[in-house]
Amino acid sequence: MSFEITTAYIDEIKALIQEKNNESLLHLMEDLHYADIAEIIEELEIPDAIYLIKLVDSETHSELIAELDDDTREKIFRGLSSKEIAERIDDLDTDDAADIISELSETQKKEVISHLEDEEHARDIIELLRYDEDTAGGLMAKELVKVNENWTVLTCVKEMRAQAEEVSKVHSIYVVDDNDLLKGRLSLKDLLTTSTRTEIKDIYIKKVDSVNVNDDAEDVAKIMRKYDLEAIPVVDELGRLVGRITIDDIVDVIKDEAEKDYQMAAGISQDVEADDSIWDLTKARLPWLVLALFGGFISVSVLGGFGEALENYKELFFFTPLIAAMAGNVGVQSSAIILQGLANDSLKGSLWNRLIKEILLSLLNGLVLAALLMSAGMYFLGFDFKVGLTVAISLVSVIIIASIIGTFVPIILDKRGIDPAMATGPFITTSNDIFGILIYFLIAKLILGF
Amino acid sequence: MSFEITTAYIDEIKALIQEKNNESLLHLMEDLHYADIAEIIEELEIPDAIYLIKLVDSETHSELIAELDDDTREKIFRGLSSKEIAERIDDLDTDDAADIISELSETQKKEVISHLEDEEHARDIIELLRYDEDTAGGLMAKELVKVNENWTVLTCVKEMRAQAEEVSKVHSIYVVDDNDLLKGRLSLKDLLTTSTRTEIKDIYIKKVDSVNVNDDAEDVAKIMRKYDLEAIPVVDELGRLVGRITIDDIVDVIKDEAEKDYQMAAGISQDVEADDSIWDLTKARLPWLVLALFGGFISVSVLGGFGEALENYKELFFFTPLIAAMAGNVGVQSSAIILQGLANDSLKGSLWNRLIKEILLSLLNGLVLAALLMSAGMYFLGFDFKVGLTVAISLVSVIIIASIIGTFVPIILDKRGIDPAMATGPFITTSNDIFGILIYFLIAKLILGF
Repeated sequence: MSFEITTAYIDEIKALIQEKNNESLLHLMEDLHYADIAEIIEELEIPDAIYLIKLVDSETHSELIAELDDDTREKIFRGLSSKEIAERIDDLDTDDAADIISELSETQKKEVISHLEDEEHARDIIELLRYDEDTAGGLMAKELVKVNENWTVLTCVKEMRAQAEEVSKVHSIYVVDDNDLLKGRLSLKDLLTTSTRTEIKDIYIKKVDSVNVNDDAEDVAKIMRKYDLEAIPVVDELGRLVGRITIDDIVDVIKDEAEKDYQMAAGISQDVEADDSIWDLTKARLPWLVLALFGGFISVSVLGGFGEALENYKELFFFTPLIAAMAGNVGVQSSAIILQGLANDSLKGSLWNRLIKEILLSLLNGLVLAALLMSAGMYFLGFDFKVGLTVAISLVSVIIIASIIGTFVPIILDKRGIDPAMATGPFITTSNDIFGILIYFLIAKLILGF
Repeated sequence: MSFEITTAYIDEIKALIQEKNNESLLHLMEDLHYADIAEIIEELEIPDAIYLIKLVDSETHSELIAELDDDTREKIFRGLSSKEIAERIDDLDTDDAADIISELSETQKKEVISHLEDEEHARDIIELLRYDEDTAGGLMAKELVKVNENWTVLTCVKEMRAQAEEVSKVHSIYVVDDNDLLKGRLSLKDLLTTSTRTEIKDIYIKKVDSVNVNDDAEDVAKIMRKYDLEAIPVVDELGRLVGRITIDDIVDVIKDEAEKDYQMAAGISQDVEADDSIWDLTKARLPWLVLALFGGFISVSVLGGFGEALENYKELFFFTPLIAAMAGNVGVQSSAIILQGLANDSLKGSLWNRLIKEILLSLLNGLVLAALLMSAGMYFLGFDFKVGLTVAISLVSVIIIASIIGTFVPIILDKRGIDPAMATGPFITTSNDIFGILIYFLIAKLILGF
C-alpha cells in the first residue's frame, strides 16, 4: 500500500503548476493522503510549493501543513500572509497548531493568532504556547472527550457526539466533577453495553493514569510505553483535566530521543539533517572536532614526552594508533551498553559487582586480543619477543581501563543529573586515546626500561 | 503517577513470600498494574519469582507473563509444567502468546499448545507461529473486530459486542465480504451516529490502508508513523483479512530498531544488555574488536613502511594518533548524518551535488581545524613551519577523504541492499584510521621529501 513518489510524477505536477492547470492538480491531489501531499511538496521548488499549498483545500487537508519539514514550512510561510497562515492553522488540532505557531517570530505569532477564526481554539493554542515543548504540556492537545460524573449515559452520548466532532480520535472518555477535577474514565466499550439511564458516577472506572503538565516528555513516553497506553490525560497542579497526549506524539518523542542519542554518540551537537546548509552542518560538527583536536594535542605531547625511546624502540611508535584505536573502540562499546541500560532503567546490582564484571569481561576480551596480537605481530611483522610482550600487556591493561572509563563515566554523569549520552562518541574516544597512549608508554618504560 | 519500586518494598515482598503469607501478597498485588508486578518479579530470585507467578491470578494479570524479560521468563518457565505455562498463555492476545511460545523448545511448544483450553485460540497461535518475527505476520494479532458488508448496523452492533469481549482495544471495525476479503472500515464514531437499520455496505469507508502478511516490520512501522495510524489490518496474498497490527507493537519495533542501529554504531554485533552474562557480552563485543585489531595491524605496517622518516622527522609520528582520530571522528559524523537521512527517506538531490557539498563542508571544517592546529602546534609545541604545514595540509586532506568515505560507503551499501548501518562505528573508524595515516605520510613524503 506504500505510496511511491516517482520523478515522473513530480515532473507531471511541476508541469501542471507551470500551466496553472488547477483542475487537474486538484484531481490528482483529491485521493492523496496529506502525508503524501507533504512528500510531494518537499520535492518542489518553494514558489511551486506555495502555489500548491494555496490551491489545496485547507479544510480537507488541514494536517498537511503540520506534516511538512520545519525548514520547508518556514520558507513557505514567507510567501503567505498572516491571514493565509491562520487559515491553514484554523482546522489543526491545538497541539499541532501551537507547535507551528511557536516557530513564528513574536510579531507574526500575534498577527496569526488574531486571524484565527474560532476564539476557543485560539485561547487553547495560547494556553499551550506557555508550556515547554519537552514537557507533557508541550505535547498535549486540548481536544478530548470529557463528561461530568453527574450526567446520565444518555446525556453523555449526546454530549459526546458534539465533542467528537472536534476530536479526530476518541481513545477514552474522561470523567470530571463540577470543578473539572479528573475523576476517572469510561471506555467506549463499556458505554456500548450500558442502559441509557444509568448515571456516569455509577459506571466509570475510578482508576485512571494521568501525568502532570510539567512532567518531562521522556518520562511520559516511558509511562505510556510501560503501561501500553494509547492516550493519557494531563492534569494541572490542582488535578484539573487540561489536555491529553496520544501515542502518535509519543512515537515521535521516542524517535527524536533515539536520533538525539545517536547524533550525540556520533559527535554531532545539534539536530541536523543531511540536507541542511553547510553552515548549519558545520555548527553541528565543528565543536566536537575542535575538542577532539585538543585531545589530539595532548596525545602529541604525551608521545613527545617519550620521544627519547624512539632511538631504540621505534616499533613502539608504530603500534600507537592501534592501541589508541582499541582503547576508543572498547570505551565506546562499554558506554553504549551502559547508556542503554540507563535509558531503560534496567541496570541492577551494585556498582561494585559491575566493576568486577567489567574487569573480568575486558580481561577475557583483552587476553584473546593480546594473544592474537602477539602471534600475528611476531609471526608476520617479526618483532622481538620483548616488544611483542610489551604491546600485548599494554593492550590488556588499556582495554581494562578503557572499559572501566566507558562504564563508569556515564553512570557518574547520570547520578549527577547530567545527560549520560554526553559521555559517548568523541568524548570517550578522545579521552581513551589519551589514556591509552599514556598507559602504553608507561608500561613500555617499565618493561623495556628506557 | 509513576510507580517506583523501592528496596524496602521488595524486601517486604520477599519476607511475605518467605512466610508464605499469600493473603497479604495478593492484597499487595491487587491494585498493581501487570507492568509493575513484572518489574517486581524482575527484582526477585527465581524461586521467589516462580512462587509469585503461581500465586497471581493468571486471568486478571494475563499480560504479566508477556511483560517479563525474555531471560527471566525462560528461567521461570523451567519451574512450571507445560500445563501451568499453557494456563498463563490462555488469556493472552494471540500475538503475545505466539511470541512466548516461539521461545520454547520444539517438544515444549507442542505440549503447551496441546494444553491450551480454547481451540480457536490455539489454532490462531499456530497460524501466527508460521510467520517470521520481522514481518507484518510476526507482529499482528488475530484479535480484531470485523463485520460483513451485508449486515445491518443492528446486527453489526450485536456481533461487535460479542467480538469486543475478545478484543482489548477496538480501533477500527473492519468490513469484509463473504469471502473474508477486506473491503473497508467503519469508524466507531460513524457507528454512533447512524440508524440501526442502515446496511453496512452503504456506510462503510471504502478506502482502507492495509499491509501484507509478508511485509517487512520496519516498513509497516514507517507506514503507520507516516500516516499516523493506530492500527492497520493485515491481509494475505489473496487480500483476505488475517490480522491487525496496533501502534504499541510498532513503538517496540521503532525502539528496537533504534537500539540496533545504536549498538551497530558502537561496534556491538548482537542485541545484549548490561546484565547479560560475560560470555554473551564477549560474543557481542569481540568480533568488531578483532576486526579493529586487524585494521590496527595494517596501520602498524603502513607506519613501518615509512620508518626511515623517523630519523629526521620524529614529530610526524607524534601526530599520527591525532590525524587518525580526526579521520575517525569526521567519518563517524558523516556516516551518522547519511544513515539518518537513509532511514527517514529524506535524502534528496543527486550524488554529484552531495559530493560537492561534502567536499565544501569538510574543506571549511578542515581549514578551521588546520589553522587551529598550525597556530597551536607552532606556538605551544614549537614545531618548525614545514612540519606544521605538512600536518595541516594532511589534516585538511584527511578530513575531506574521511567525510567522503563516511558519506558514500553507507549510500553504496544501501543501493546494494546491504544494511548501511554496517558502515558505522568501528568499521568507519578503523578504515579511516588506515586511510588517514596513509594519506598523512604520503603528503609528508611529498612535502618533506624523505
